[in-house]
Amino acid sequence: MDDNIIFGRNPVIELINAHHSINKILVADGARDGSIKKITALALDHKIPVDFVPRSKLDQLADRQNHQGVVALAAPVDYSSLDDILNHAQEINQPPFIILLDEIQDPHNFGAILRTADAAGVHGVLIPKHRSVSLSATVAKTSAGAVEYVRVAQIGNVAQTIRRLKELGLTVVGADLDGLSIFDQSARSDLNVPLVLIIGNEGKGIRRLTKELCDRLIAIPMVGKINSLNASSAAAVLIYEVFRQRRQ
Amino acid sequence: MDDNIIFGRNPVIELINAHHSINKILVADGARDGSIKKITALALDHKIPVDFVPRSKLDQLADRQNHQGVVALAAPVDYSSLDDILNHAQEINQPPFIILLDEIQDPHNFGAILRTADAAGVHGVLIPKHRSVSLSATVAKTSAGAVEYVRVAQIGNVAQTIRRLKELGLTVVGADLDGLSIFDQSARSDLNVPLVLIIGNEGKGIRRLTKELCDRLIAIPMVGKINSLNASSAAAVLIYEVFRQRRQ
Repeated sequence: MDDNIIFGRNPVIELINAHHSINKILVADGARDGSIKKITALALDHKIPVDFVPRSKLDQLADRQNHQGVVALAAPVDYSSLDDILNHAQEINQPPFIILLDEIQDPHNFGAILRTADAAGVHGVLIPKHRSVSLSATVAKTSAGAVEYVRVAQIGNVAQTIRRLKELGLTVVGADLDGLSIFDQSARSDLNVPLVLIIGNEGKGIRRLTKELCDRLIAIPMVGKINSLNASSAAAVLIYEVFRQRRQ
Repeated sequence: MDDNIIFGRNPVIELINAHHSINKILVADGARDGSIKKITALALDHKIPVDFVPRSKLDQLADRQNHQGVVALAAPVDYSSLDDILNHAQEINQPPFIILLDEIQDPHNFGAILRTADAAGVHGVLIPKHRSVSLSATVAKTSAGAVEYVRVAQIGNVAQTIRRLKELGLTVVGADLDGLSIFDQSARSDLNVPLVLIIGNEGKGIRRLTKELCDRLIAIPMVGKINSLNASSAAAVLIYEVFRQRRQ
């Protein structure tokens, strides 16, 4: 656990009202009086996940100080929104280049990908709100500071977000073992467009539903015995392939 | 510590004589009787580093069993030699493509690089015997099994090895922030040759002396605020640039 820990009822309410980026709110099992109800209702309004956990877990997180049955896990930096990301690309007059991480789990992979995204001029990175890594101190550290510069937005529904981006004219390209090789001339020639590049989960790759929404699937050619790269290595190869085409 | 732990005087002597890959031998401070002298002499013959450490350290490594003042840290798989690597390239009739990791420290980076090396048909990876990560259980796990397929050789003296490879006709290319951009056509056109690609330490990059021995330095272009990539991400981009040129 390496989020910032905020505890106590009023501090958590203030944190929510200040629109600070909160990864999750933890409430003690059985707590259900007035101000706890207010907090869970506020969390729902702000689309912040709420988990009910044993009180001992909160004692540990709050280092035995008086948490009043509620702890918020806050992101070390604020999240952006998808609109921020699209506006940023427009402001600097570039066709959008967005990365979507479909259920990446490892904070070291996420940090390394943010570092590559910064280096290659990616306009923003999208991560799902659920079943995904989120911004944390480990991510910030692994990113070598890139977390301060690369816009990261949490999205509620991946399919809905992809459909919206397609309506806005972005091409959606997924990294998949069955895709067209990036060494193939026809695959390569098409990445210099307004683009969403989707990188899948470390073990399972891109989910079937997400894959079906892609305009195209691309693959990194491999000649060895192991049939996949580390997620952040794969992201680096693909992000730099896009970056190269944009620069040439 | 995630090497295989072998302890006791005779087991360690047998391990050395069997030419098993040993990362290091640890001897208890003050131990200097006959069979310990034999072990340190054997280690010297086999170029295995020996460290003298407090006896309590050995107690801990041997889980309080009777280690008789000596513990060997054995690699989970055997090392190859530089000759093995060169012969392998020749056997499959390809110009050699060798990676040299100049004092990489992080086993996760090493594991991810081995995975990329397997995927891109690298013939072998060289690591220095000292001040470098070595093969370990963490490396094996992070490599997703690639450690079983990619030849890894330890080298005693980096400068001497580079000179020998140059004599054999290999071009030595170092990754360095001040190098020629890989997006530059003249840099790109030259990587399809018998090649040693050198990746430097996570923090400091390639050492000055190593850099001076390079035929050429190449750089990954970056447009963000952070001025370097994660070592395994950088390796992935560069290894795939070489692989692409070899395939086209």
